[in-house]
Amino acid sequence: MTDMATPRLEARQLLLDWADGESHAFPYIWLRDTDPAGFHPATGERVFDLTSVPLELAPEAARIEGASLVIDWQGGAGTSRFDLGWLRENRPGAARPDPAAVPAMPWRGDLGAGGVPRARAADVMRDDAAFADWLRRSKAYGLSIVEGLDDDTEAGCAVARRIGFLRETNFGLTFEVVSKPDPNNLAYTSEALPLHTDLTNQELPPGWQFLHCLANEAEGGGSVFCDGVAVAEDLARENPDAFELLATVDIPFRFHDAGTDIRARKTVIRRGRDGRVEEICFNAHLADILDIDPAIMPDYYAAYRRLMQMTRDPAYLVTLKLKAGEMVVFDNRRVLHGRAAFDPSTGFRHLRGCYVDRGELDSRLRVLARAAARPDAA
Amino acid sequence: MTDMATPRLEARQLLLDWADGESHAFPYIWLRDTDPAGFHPATGERVFDLTSVPLELAPEAARIEGASLVIDWQGGAGTSRFDLGWLRENRPGAARPDPAAVPAMPWRGDLGAGGVPRARAADVMRDDAAFADWLRRSKAYGLSIVEGLDDDTEAGCAVARRIGFLRETNFGLTFEVVSKPDPNNLAYTSEALPLHTDLTNQELPPGWQFLHCLANEAEGGGSVFCDGVAVAEDLARENPDAFELLATVDIPFRFHDAGTDIRARKTVIRRGRDGRVEEICFNAHLADILDIDPAIMPDYYAAYRRLMQMTRDPAYLVTLKLKAGEMVVFDNRRVLHGRAAFDPSTGFRHLRGCYVDRGELDSRLRVLARAAARPDAA
Repeated sequence: MTDMATPRLEARQLLLDWADGESHAFPYIWLRDTDPAGFHPATGERVFDLTSVPLELAPEAARIEGASLVIDWQGGAGTSRFDLGWLRENRPGAARPDPAAVPAMPWRGDLGAGGVPRARAADVMRDDAAFADWLRRSKAYGLSIVEGLDDDTEAGCAVARRIGFLRETNFGLTFEVVSKPDPNNLAYTSEALPLHTDLTNQELPPGWQFLHCLANEAEGGGSVFCDGVAVAEDLARENPDAFELLATVDIPFRFHDAGTDIRARKTVIRRGRDGRVEEICFNAHLADILDIDPAIMPDYYAAYRRLMQMTRDPAYLVTLKLKAGEMVVFDNRRVLHGRAAFDPSTGFRHLRGCYVDRGELDSRLRVLARAAARPDAA
Repeated sequence: MTDMATPRLEARQLLLDWADGESHAFPYIWLRDTDPAGFHPATGERVFDLTSVPLELAPEAARIEGASLVIDWQGGAGTSRFDLGWLRENRPGAARPDPAAVPAMPWRGDLGAGGVPRARAADVMRDDAAFADWLRRSKAYGLSIVEGLDDDTEAGCAVARRIGFLRETNFGLTFEVVSKPDPNNLAYTSEALPLHTDLTNQELPPGWQFLHCLANEAEGGGSVFCDGVAVAEDLARENPDAFELLATVDIPFRFHDAGTDIRARKTVIRRGRDGRVEEICFNAHLADILDIDPAIMPDYYAAYRRLMQMTRDPAYLVTLKLKAGEMVVFDNRRVLHGRAAFDPSTGFRHLRGCYVDRGELDSRLRVLARAAARPDAA
C-alpha cells in the first residue's frame, strides 16, 4: 500500500490529506507514543516512556519521504518515521481488523438439529484450514458438533486443548456428567435440566463448553439448546422495559458445597458498548435468594419469568440426542443448554466435559489467520 | 432469633410489621420463589419452577405460627412456611452478610515496607485461624508478605493452592521470573519494570499474584508496589474529568507472540455499582496502539499520563527487596507492581510466580468463616 498524503500541522494534531480526498487527524502525543521505534524488538511490548516527553509536544517539521511520514520533534525529542499505509490503517478512531470478530448469527428452533454446524474430529485435529473453518462456524452459531471422536475419554478434551488450555473450575479441569450418589450439582443426577448457562456464580463464567458423549444408551437424556442472543433480541423488541431490567439490574448468583462458596452479582443480559447482546447469564438453580429493591421486584420477576418461558418455547429450541463419538461444543455465555430426564435403569449415559475460555479461542483464530495469510499458505 | 411480626396483605406484597416498629415488604412472587421447600435437599440449588405459578399469585391467608410465617396460596399453589428471623435477614433490599467483604484500606508510601502485613508460612499452612486472618489482612491492603518458606520451588504455590486452584494463563500454570534468552515478555529480562498490573489484555486479568523469592543475590532487582485504589481515589479528587475519562473510555490491550494473540478492550479504572474503585488495569507495555476518537485523544493522554506519573511518585510507593524464603502476595487487579533493573552478572535472581483468582480467595474466606462460626470452634 503506497498511499500518498500531504501533512498539515495544527495546534495539537497533524492532518494527513490523502490523495483520494480523505483526511485524518493524528494527535501529536499519539504519534510520539506510537512511534514504531518505541516497541521492544523481541517482545513487541511498548517500551517508550510517555512521561519522558511533554504532553504539548509538537513537530519542528513533518515531511513525506517515499511512502513514509517523517516527523522531527521539537526540543530534541528525536525523529519518528511511519509507513503511510500503516498509519492509515491504524489511525485514531479507526476500527482494527480482527480475525476473531465473527458476527453472531442468531438462530431459532427452525435451525433444526440438521442445521447445527458439524465437523469431523480427524479434519479438525489435522488440518489447520478445517480447524479455523470449524471455529468460525462455531462462533457464528455459538454451537457445533464434532463427530467421529475416538472412544477414549481424552478424545474430546484433546480437541479442546488444540484451541487452548482448559479453564479450571471448582468442578475440576474436566468433569463427568453421569448420575452419581451424593451429587453437589443437579447435572450429576438423572433429573431433567431446564435450559441454563453454567457457573453464572463465577465472576467470569466459562466460555466454550465441550461435552463429549461416551455413552447415551439410557431412555431419555436428549440435549436441548437455545440461542440466548436470539431470545434476548426478541425480548428487546417484544418488551423493551423487561429487556432493560434484565440488562441493568444485578442479581446474586451462588454455588456452595462442603468446600466452596462462590458468589457473583451480575445482570442476566449483558450488552457490549455497541448495545449488542454479548452475554447471557441465566441459571435458575444458581440464582440466589433475590435481594433487589422490593419496589422493582414484581416487574423484575415478570421480566425474568418471561425470559425463562422463552428459553423453553419450542420456537427457540434445537433438540438432539448425542451419540457416542459425538461432541457438542457451545459458547456457554451465549447458548443455553439443558437435557431431558433419563432413566438410568435402561442404560448408561456418560458425557465428559471441559471448558476453554472465549479469550483462548479468539487467540487461536487470530494465530490461524496469521498462518493462512502467509504467501506460502494455500 | 424469634422476632415477632404481624402480617398485612396488600395487592402485590405482604408487609411484616415487626415488634420493634420496623416494617418490611415481601412481594408475593418473591415469597413463593423463595420457599425453602423449593431448594434441592442435597445440592442446595433452586428446583422450584417459577413458570409453574402465575405472576399474580396471592395468598389465601397468612398467619404467624410460633416463630414462622405461614402462607396458604390461592388456587391450590400450596403452603409456604418461613422462619421469621431468616425472613428478616434475607428480606428484599437487605444487604446480605458476606465474610469475604473485607473493605479495602487504601495505602500510600507512608505505609513503608514495615507496614506491609506479614504472616509465617508455617502458621498459614497449619492454622485455619491464622490462615483466615492473613487472607483478611491481604484483602484489606491488597498486599502482604509470607515469610519462612522452605527453599523448595513448590513452597510458594503450595500456599496459593491452600486458597484454591491456580489460574492458568498463556504463560502457564506457574512462571519463573528470571532473565532468559528470547524473552516473550519484559519480565523475563533484567530490565526495570515500571509499575503495572499483569495481563490487562485478558478479559479477566488474574486476581491474586504470588511471587516466591528463591534467590535475589543480584545487585538491584528491588520490588516496588503502589495501591491503585489510593491513586485512583486521589486522582478523582485532584482531577475529576481525568478520572472520568479513565473510568469510561475503553482502550485496547494486546499480547502476542508466536502462539498467541490475546486482546481485550477495557477501561483503566473500573468502578463497582456503588461507585467505588474496584479494579485498575494499567500496563503501558500491553496497551495496544490507541484507537479512540482523535477528538478526545489529547485529553485522554493527559489523564492517562497523569495516572502514570502518580504510580511512580514516591508518595505512593512501597519498595522492598525480597529475600529468599519470602513471598509477596498481592491483588493484581488493585496493586501495581514493578522492579528496579538488576545486574545478572552480580548474582542470581529467581522468583517463582502463580495466580489464584479473586473468586477462589473469596470462597475460601467464606468457607473458613463457616468453620469458625461452628459452636465447637475456638
